[in-house]
Amino acid sequence: MKEANCPVVIERVEPEIDRGRYPIKRVVGEWVVVEADVFTGGHDELACVLRYRAIDDLNWQETPMRPTVNDRWRGEFRVDRLGRYLYTVEGWLDRFHTWARDLVRRLEAGQDVTVDLQIGTQLVTAAAERAEGQDARALREAARSLTTKRGERTALSSGLAQLMARHPGRCFATRYERELEVIVDRPLARFSAWYEMFPRSAAQAPGRHGTFNDVEARLDYVADMGFNVLYLPPIHPIGRSFRKGPNNVIKSTPEDPGSPWAIGGAEGGHKELHPELGTLDDFRALVGAARRRGLEIALDLAFQVSPDHPYVTEHPSWFRARPDGTIQYAENPPKKYQDIYPFDFESEDWRLLWQELESVVQFWIDQGVRTFRVDNPHTKPFAFWEWLIGEIRGRNPDVIFLSEAFTRPKVMYRLAKLGFNQSYTYFAWRNEGWELRQYLTELTKSPVREYFRPNLWPNTPDILTDALQAGGRTASALRFVLAATLGASYGIYGPAFELAEVTPLTPGREEYLNSEKYQIRHWDLERPGSLRPLIAKVNRIRREHPALQQDWTLRFLRTDNERLLAFAKSSPLPPAPQEEGRGGGEVDVIVVVVNLDPTWAQSGWVEVPVVARAGHPPYGVEDLLNDTRHTWRTDGWNYVALDPAATPAHIMRVPRPLVPETPVG
Amino acid sequence: MKEANCPVVIERVEPEIDRGRYPIKRVVGEWVVVEADVFTGGHDELACVLRYRAIDDLNWQETPMRPTVNDRWRGEFRVDRLGRYLYTVEGWLDRFHTWARDLVRRLEAGQDVTVDLQIGTQLVTAAAERAEGQDARALREAARSLTTKRGERTALSSGLAQLMARHPGRCFATRYERELEVIVDRPLARFSAWYEMFPRSAAQAPGRHGTFNDVEARLDYVADMGFNVLYLPPIHPIGRSFRKGPNNVIKSTPEDPGSPWAIGGAEGGHKELHPELGTLDDFRALVGAARRRGLEIALDLAFQVSPDHPYVTEHPSWFRARPDGTIQYAENPPKKYQDIYPFDFESEDWRLLWQELESVVQFWIDQGVRTFRVDNPHTKPFAFWEWLIGEIRGRNPDVIFLSEAFTRPKVMYRLAKLGFNQSYTYFAWRNEGWELRQYLTELTKSPVREYFRPNLWPNTPDILTDALQAGGRTASALRFVLAATLGASYGIYGPAFELAEVTPLTPGREEYLNSEKYQIRHWDLERPGSLRPLIAKVNRIRREHPALQQDWTLRFLRTDNERLLAFAKSSPLPPAPQEEGRGGGEVDVIVVVVNLDPTWAQSGWVEVPVVARAGHPPYGVEDLLNDTRHTWRTDGWNYVALDPAATPAHIMRVPRPLVPETPVG
Repeated sequence: MKEANCPVVIERVEPEIDRGRYPIKRVVGEWVVVEADVFTGGHDELACVLRYRAIDDLNWQETPMRPTVNDRWRGEFRVDRLGRYLYTVEGWLDRFHTWARDLVRRLEAGQDVTVDLQIGTQLVTAAAERAEGQDARALREAARSLTTKRGERTALSSGLAQLMARHPGRCFATRYERELEVIVDRPLARFSAWYEMFPRSAAQAPGRHGTFNDVEARLDYVADMGFNVLYLPPIHPIGRSFRKGPNNVIKSTPEDPGSPWAIGGAEGGHKELHPELGTLDDFRALVGAARRRGLEIALDLAFQVSPDHPYVTEHPSWFRARPDGTIQYAENPPKKYQDIYPFDFESEDWRLLWQELESVVQFWIDQGVRTFRVDNPHTKPFAFWEWLIGEIRGRNPDVIFLSEAFTRPKVMYRLAKLGFNQSYTYFAWRNEGWELRQYLTELTKSPVREYFRPNLWPNTPDILTDALQAGGRTASALRFVLAATLGASYGIYGPAFELAEVTPLTPGREEYLNSEKYQIRHWDLERPGSLRPLIAKVNRIRREHPALQQDWTLRFLRTDNERLLAFAKSSPLPPAPQEEGRGGGEVDVIVVVVNLDPTWAQSGWVEVPVVARAGHPPYGVEDLLNDTRHTWRTDGWNYVALDPAATPAHIMRVPRPLVPETPVG
Repeated sequence: MKEANCPVVIERVEPEIDRGRYPIKRVVGEWVVVEADVFTGGHDELACVLRYRAIDDLNWQETPMRPTVNDRWRGEFRVDRLGRYLYTVEGWLDRFHTWARDLVRRLEAGQDVTVDLQIGTQLVTAAAERAEGQDARALREAARSLTTKRGERTALSSGLAQLMARHPGRCFATRYERELEVIVDRPLARFSAWYEMFPRSAAQAPGRHGTFNDVEARLDYVADMGFNVLYLPPIHPIGRSFRKGPNNVIKSTPEDPGSPWAIGGAEGGHKELHPELGTLDDFRALVGAARRRGLEIALDLAFQVSPDHPYVTEHPSWFRARPDGTIQYAENPPKKYQDIYPFDFESEDWRLLWQELESVVQFWIDQGVRTFRVDNPHTKPFAFWEWLIGEIRGRNPDVIFLSEAFTRPKVMYRLAKLGFNQSYTYFAWRNEGWELRQYLTELTKSPVREYFRPNLWPNTPDILTDALQAGGRTASALRFVLAATLGASYGIYGPAFELAEVTPLTPGREEYLNSEKYQIRHWDLERPGSLRPLIAKVNRIRREHPALQQDWTLRFLRTDNERLLAFAKSSPLPPAPQEEGRGGGEVDVIVVVVNLDPTWAQSGWVEVPVVARAGHPPYGVEDLLNDTRHTWRTDGWNYVALDPAATPAHIMRVPRPLVPETPVG
């Protein structure tokens, strides 16, 4: 029978990444909205359910799916627990629904329905056999009633329809051929503000090597600006062989501290601390002190070694030999990094290497770390990351990995599919309105958003963009507002960023002059012109407005001046009318207008398509960034003017829902 | 090792239908252009090949793929034989290419490359071991040369690059996880003009039942109009029980011939001929006479029976019983078709039913038929069609099935995926410019085109559209030109169509008055106003212009008058610069402008984006339909005027290639 008939087709289930090979991602409390093409030949009515379960709960839950248009069905479920969920779709021929629909047509045409009521009796009797107790009795009674004088009334009663819906025959039920997976993360994976700093530059007095205690003294500074992740570059012993001097020169003196990414020396490797930073107890104290301020410490996973790392002598097979017998150092020809050896992941001894690297991650998890920034993951095998992240998160589903891959787009997306919970982006190099719109639309409206969570950085220790070099403090301010409002997750490398340090090593190259990568810096945090108040204010607005805590509702607004970039975000995310709003189903709508010009004042008109009330009364909006109020028109365009000398942006709370957008893609 | 490293990723191979579940379609001589995302982490260069073979040839062929943009690669192969082909993609790390690229960078930076040349020696020596004969000797010589004074010159020589490309290491080669399938059909599957007629109405004298001999006498009429398929509604015995009378009335007299779709009577069923049409010899003679005129006979596969069909008594299990013991007739409530019993494909006895229906198809193939129009396939199980078409075409890969499903779009597409070689469309109901552009773009530019070959019919015996009813002869003329130029395959139901018979049974319904479905008609083929000359001329233009023999290059042109629909087709199809052109790589470009208004003259401007020569000289175009010549401007818009009283359209030969279009989707 099954071979002859399998008439319900279930296709094009979304979301689904690469035929279900990779999971989608959500955070706890979010919804998964599932759509599918479900159809059959012929004229039968269908019914369809979304099936889902947490992976450690063997009982499937079911929720009905509803037809939308053109044989597309939609349903949704909420993920409430960390870890993994599964979902799939089931549909079947709803013979009772078909029968009742046809019966109405026959009665309307005045036809004799005696035989049809007999067919109905068969359907209802079969349902009675599937049911128990009260339902079974009610169904048997209805089956009898169908062939009496009251038959037509019984047939079309809502009571019978409800009874039959509770005991469907699932005739020729088809289950979608795959079970699809969801990774459920902590909310931090979706909404985070990162601050990167070099601990060795944290000393309060110039000339001294900073310590974990100095970093602890800096925590209030960072927390008061409103960050919730404090990310430290590698904190391990640093190699001496081929150590680089200031500004990346080949020669160094014994006083030069070297690059923290040249990990490993006589003092130990990836599980040891640089002695001048402090002890493991100091580090654990820092982690605890940070946590008490709502901050978490993120560490850097840089899987490479200096020539002095203990691995080099203990596991020579983990490195590639050159024909002259030396070990292959890192290269990107013609650039050579003699102070760094990459691992040879093609080594015969790869299993031991993988296990050792996993133990490094577990070691720092055991010290209280839950967040890692991963250095250059694209230069290690894809399979390694999928394995490592799977192993670690199987035991610690609250751990978050940020992928630092600045490489080809498909490689960056691939790493995200393999398990990274957040990813660096090209944001730093997207300055014009059209390129920001194009890139952020790709990240927030295409299927990419199901697995790739962008983290927007205006700068890093390696990236001092032309835009920042040329625009100085006002450019830093506008790039900051863009990062923190376009992105629910963003980060800055400070104090260089908030102090608007923009002098390059060589004009037109992205390297900082006197980079902290190669020397200890002392920063005057109270220097005039610091962006600290702006940063604190924007981070407070982010915390208070759920609209800014996600990226999926991002939509760009039209302006008549290309130097003005305008966009809106609103909360809650569909389909949760009251789940994430601030009570009572209220919608949080934020409109941001940024002047992309760091030099000149720009003005123009912005289209804000709010739902209009009768008579189109004007309404008041509040600029949360500049503490001003404006009256805006319900019926279309509003005037804005922004002088970079005064402020980079408006961040407006708009007390009206926006008219729905036509879907992209 | 393999577990540790598998660094080449191959994804998003196109064309691929539903993860390779269904084949794409081509006709003999066409190209399959394959694209794939192929990439790796790190900095290695890649190489990539497209692998393909005819299914009965165990040797895979390989052809190189070329990178285009953003890690997308492209390659192509030509299908030369009927039946099935397979294709897939393989990529690997090209270590020699990476090495040579890096060597150039090192030399440009003035670095010492002694060790690098040693590494090169290892790579070349390994290639020598893979090679044989002369190549092996040359590679060994090159390996030696690399460590001599001439090493740098040898390393960068094109001779060594070619040798190494012939013996690649295929380091960590990845084969795409699926082999994808191509169905290769006869060219008729892509380019066909169908003429449908009722044989019983073919008698030369009124009042007589037409015969196969009468149809044979009509062949010149059909062939001279330029058709290449003559499709006959069912030619089998017709049931007497519940036989319908003229205009579908319930009661009939013994003289009424009944509907040919009520198949089966005392004289036999699907393998017998209606006695009044003639004998099997007559039928075979008709098939042969048609073939001599370049026409082939297509039969109708209507898998249903009249109550008098022998199956009803011989195989009662193939039909569904109602609770009152009667057999379930066909219904679409409240409509009842008591003269027709559907098969019960859920019957316990389904295997025998399927085999019997397959034997029906094979029977007519044995009589010389190679083309079938399938009646209402969507009311039978999907699995049945996939099985039936697979079985038949496994033995007879030249057979063509046309799906007559007018139902929901996804069901129509599904049937095409399952194997139908051509499909009816919604063309009959797409009258406005915007809806024709939208629908034909979906059919010709989206992945649908890989499996769904549209066949455009302006009318059928069941479909006399409002547009034809209201517009009469001029509407028929414009709908004909649209069908025959928008569609490489199209059909008409005649002689009703060419005689512009447009009187409905009831105004606003699509049924013909005095439909041939229920009665014999006598047609005066010489009636004034016949569209026969127009049809003959357009079919001749189609035969002479390869641009009109395919749909994939269809592109709509802008006009400033929405009542003027303009579009272009050009040949050859990419990537075949000289394969399908008319010699010397010449491009065939046809521009069609149709006046969608059957009543009023319309004029306006049409944009024809030809490749301009220096100085933008005007150029001459020839209206092949109206035998006129015009001078057009190279730099943009041209004026056209069309009076429906004179002609429905321009069909222009444009002696200039068009500027490439930006891809859709």
